[in-house]
Amino acid sequence: MSHVQQHKFQLDESEMPTRWYNVLPDLPTPPPPVLHPGTGQPVGPDDLAPLFPMDLILQEVSTERYVDIPEEVLDVYRLWRPSPLYRAHRLEKALGTPARIYYKYEGVSPAGSHKPNTAVPQAFYNARAGIRKLTTETGAGQWGTALAFACAQYGLACEVWQVRASYDQKPYRRMMIETFGGTVHPSPSELTEAGRRILAAHPDSTGSLGIAISEAVEVAAQDPTSNYALGSVLNHVLMHQTIIGEEALLQLAQAGETPDLLVGCTGGGSNFGGLMFPFLRERWAGRMSPTVRAVEPAACPSLTQGTYAYDFGDTAGMTPLMKMHTLGHDFVPDPIHAGGLRYHGMSPLISHLYETREIEAVAKPQTECFSAGVLFARTEGIVPAPEPTHALAAAIEEAVRCKDTGEEKVILTALCGHGHLDLAAYDAYLSGNVVDHAWEDADIQAAVAEALSRLPTLA
Amino acid sequence: MSHVQQHKFQLDESEMPTRWYNVLPDLPTPPPPVLHPGTGQPVGPDDLAPLFPMDLILQEVSTERYVDIPEEVLDVYRLWRPSPLYRAHRLEKALGTPARIYYKYEGVSPAGSHKPNTAVPQAFYNARAGIRKLTTETGAGQWGTALAFACAQYGLACEVWQVRASYDQKPYRRMMIETFGGTVHPSPSELTEAGRRILAAHPDSTGSLGIAISEAVEVAAQDPTSNYALGSVLNHVLMHQTIIGEEALLQLAQAGETPDLLVGCTGGGSNFGGLMFPFLRERWAGRMSPTVRAVEPAACPSLTQGTYAYDFGDTAGMTPLMKMHTLGHDFVPDPIHAGGLRYHGMSPLISHLYETREIEAVAKPQTECFSAGVLFARTEGIVPAPEPTHALAAAIEEAVRCKDTGEEKVILTALCGHGHLDLAAYDAYLSGNVVDHAWEDADIQAAVAEALSRLPTLA
Repeated sequence: MSHVQQHKFQLDESEMPTRWYNVLPDLPTPPPPVLHPGTGQPVGPDDLAPLFPMDLILQEVSTERYVDIPEEVLDVYRLWRPSPLYRAHRLEKALGTPARIYYKYEGVSPAGSHKPNTAVPQAFYNARAGIRKLTTETGAGQWGTALAFACAQYGLACEVWQVRASYDQKPYRRMMIETFGGTVHPSPSELTEAGRRILAAHPDSTGSLGIAISEAVEVAAQDPTSNYALGSVLNHVLMHQTIIGEEALLQLAQAGETPDLLVGCTGGGSNFGGLMFPFLRERWAGRMSPTVRAVEPAACPSLTQGTYAYDFGDTAGMTPLMKMHTLGHDFVPDPIHAGGLRYHGMSPLISHLYETREIEAVAKPQTECFSAGVLFARTEGIVPAPEPTHALAAAIEEAVRCKDTGEEKVILTALCGHGHLDLAAYDAYLSGNVVDHAWEDADIQAAVAEALSRLPTLA
Repeated sequence: MSHVQQHKFQLDESEMPTRWYNVLPDLPTPPPPVLHPGTGQPVGPDDLAPLFPMDLILQEVSTERYVDIPEEVLDVYRLWRPSPLYRAHRLEKALGTPARIYYKYEGVSPAGSHKPNTAVPQAFYNARAGIRKLTTETGAGQWGTALAFACAQYGLACEVWQVRASYDQKPYRRMMIETFGGTVHPSPSELTEAGRRILAAHPDSTGSLGIAISEAVEVAAQDPTSNYALGSVLNHVLMHQTIIGEEALLQLAQAGETPDLLVGCTGGGSNFGGLMFPFLRERWAGRMSPTVRAVEPAACPSLTQGTYAYDFGDTAGMTPLMKMHTLGHDFVPDPIHAGGLRYHGMSPLISHLYETREIEAVAKPQTECFSAGVLFARTEGIVPAPEPTHALAAAIEEAVRCKDTGEEKVILTALCGHGHLDLAAYDAYLSGNVVDHAWEDADIQAAVAEALSRLPTLA
């Protein structure tokens, strides 16, 4: 039946990619080195050995184009991978656009986001190195959930320091981490010197990601059987995420499409890099020519407003210095609902690609993003996490432009997670309690409002 | 590679069943009629016309073996269907069982459960009949979420009366209904005579499903452009759910398996019937011979402890009389976390099959179910809703028995929804705050505890 519109483009498990793509050797120019905060010299493997297993340290600096995914990791990936690619027929119809919108959905994972793609190999390499426990920080809770699940697969304990404000306001994330077998401490905690020092000075401290990192690093550094795990920013993390883009390439080919525009949200950059790097490789090889666009929150615009400079990865200034787009390591963004995008810096690889004009970037106010999220939920049936509503807003913006120009653009967007544990943010938006920067473009605002108004509401 | 274990058994959209299976004409003996509460005579289509569209009334009494699914419904089903069937390799390994455990997962739907399978056609038939608004009740909120999503697909308004206790304690469900465009009222409300009467007598009433039904029915009955929708119990609801079983038959065949045991949880019976009816058809045709087992909560054991008698579907005694297994329409079950299983009665079709020995039933205490849910989450990566943990507990029980007998039984269980919005229940369980009936079998308890102890926890 010719009118049947295929919605899902699935791959069999046997078609799942078995290697990660390392963008480093394909970069048009080499990225600047990471520097030791004390000496100002490039860091070597030994500098990182107290916190990371050698397999991950070598991946961080590898110049091999492909890295085989261990069989033990593929076994766990198969719980949810290959993840689906969808064509957003019903969203297109609501917008009345000739554009064809596709979304790669990572919300089917155990944590409900892309984070397990790197949490699983990180836990595996640590377990193989004889490590017994991983420590980490978590803000909104996505990363802590992913690492707790991953640790359960390889017999590792998992200890998570969750920013106190988030620990108190988002108890469901803590509960999910505990259900997967992890242990959660509100940060600052009495368990570390870093935490005790903060609490002595500020007994009512609601914490920060920087403090939580300090606590997790302190515990890992003091115990030779414990290591620390980071959920974004670093090269090896982005490499693990490239399975998203490798799958999406196969799925778009299955749909018979070549993308004109790729859009993804950027916080630390791992979801964005994971989808985009394999497509950039194809573009550099001359097989396609998509525009690649990063979407960041107007409240934390590291690419569009930050400077490209050496800066610390954490607030306290304990990490190596990375050359990246940054708002300054002491920048405190507004408390927008997309907690995963509230990071002062940007992955050095993404920053380098932006600086060399390989990718574009835009910043979106959160009301525009929530509006896109609500329209998407009502048409496609998935409530997106606040983070990927930024990418959806940019996809919708382009689709509305296509309505004017008549272009049948193929748009692919990264839907990196569901919003089941973020419903309070939607509640705030629907109650009119989310206010922020003005929309960039009144025409887009009018088009989305019109699409929403054609959907039913109870007067 | 022979050691690669396939986890997912997926169908393409082109393989999605295009008809529902109506078990009625295949029943070994005909079920007793539904009676009018006033006259005591069998109800006719006209009796139901104020609340339901004629398409659904005719489906309720249809004796056709198959009913074609309208193309407009298939289009929406394709947003998430066919749903996946999984083999629980990692759960099997944790249990050390020779049994092969499969689960059919409905948590991929927009509402996160099986409920949209019937919400979507109900909304469609109502919209085609010119209805502008659907009203309904919701307890835990799954059904209200499904109907709100379904109404958004066909331009209907959706008005949900949510039991006040649930409205206050589970705000995420209300928020999800509103995100899909529905309107939620706590029940009892000032909007109906039924609600006002209760509030006058009991200003602090926390409501009940019976009161919420009365309010939703009152509003629908007074407005010729509004109808009422029910999420379980009725014949047409169970028929819509048979797409679950039809898909599972194809997927088990793809896996090369014939089931020995089918287990599903039962509240009103729609998820259970949806999976089981197509398998019963195959059994009656002599193509397989699985045992079919219903699992109900020990706190609300309508099949194992109730009587088979004519009773009302609601607490207030306003509905037609149905012959069913019932604990009495004024029975108030303990406030267990599996809110969807707290129903005094059981679908007449399921009751009839139980009475005629076509299916078995067991009752499980909720601590056993949560224990199964936690083991499942840590091994398979999905946090199940409290309702299907009952089916998982029964599947695990059988798998542990197989460990003793060495039987390689093929067990298929219905995983009817995820527990993302039920994490507070897991928190209560993990904190030791869920106590109830004793486990039936100490050996099972020991085996599950041992499997859990082999998984990592932080001492």
